[in-house]
Amino acid sequence: MKNSNPELAVEIGKRIKHFRNARSMSQESLAERSGLHRTYIGSCERGERNITILNLSILCESFDITLKVFFDEL
Amino acid sequence: MKNSNPELAVEIGKRIKHFRNARSMSQESLAERSGLHRTYIGSCERGERNITILNLSILCESFDITLKVFFDEL
Repeated sequence: MKNSNPELAVEIGKRIKHFRNARSMSQESLAERSGLHRTYIGSCERGERNITILNLSILCESFDITLKVFFDEL
Repeated sequence: MKNSNPELAVEIGKRIKHFRNARSMSQESLAERSGLHRTYIGSCERGERNITILNLSILCESFDITLKVFFDEL
């Protein structure tokens, strides 16, 4: 994937959803676990948000993965 | 590094500076190349900004690396 691709937010969103589903978490349970709002997580998953590194790192921590692993297949 | 470490922004900033220096770029030339403002880049390097994934991807593209490579040693 090209880094500055306008589709980057969408790809990031899909990747968040992938890890959430792989852990059988609902958006609700991920929200509870991460402390981020459920609707915020939903909009990130749909690629509607330009998520910050800090919030992404919070989600990664909820998935028990590093940022490196998050970007491994992106 | 723990993902939600409050020092994450500082680590990200050091990593940006590392890649910029490795390419013998000034903040000025990185600004010109990336289209981001020089003072914004400076504040990211000092860890004062919670940079978004999209802006980080723009910097990575200026360094000709992927986000995965950026996070490799973090």
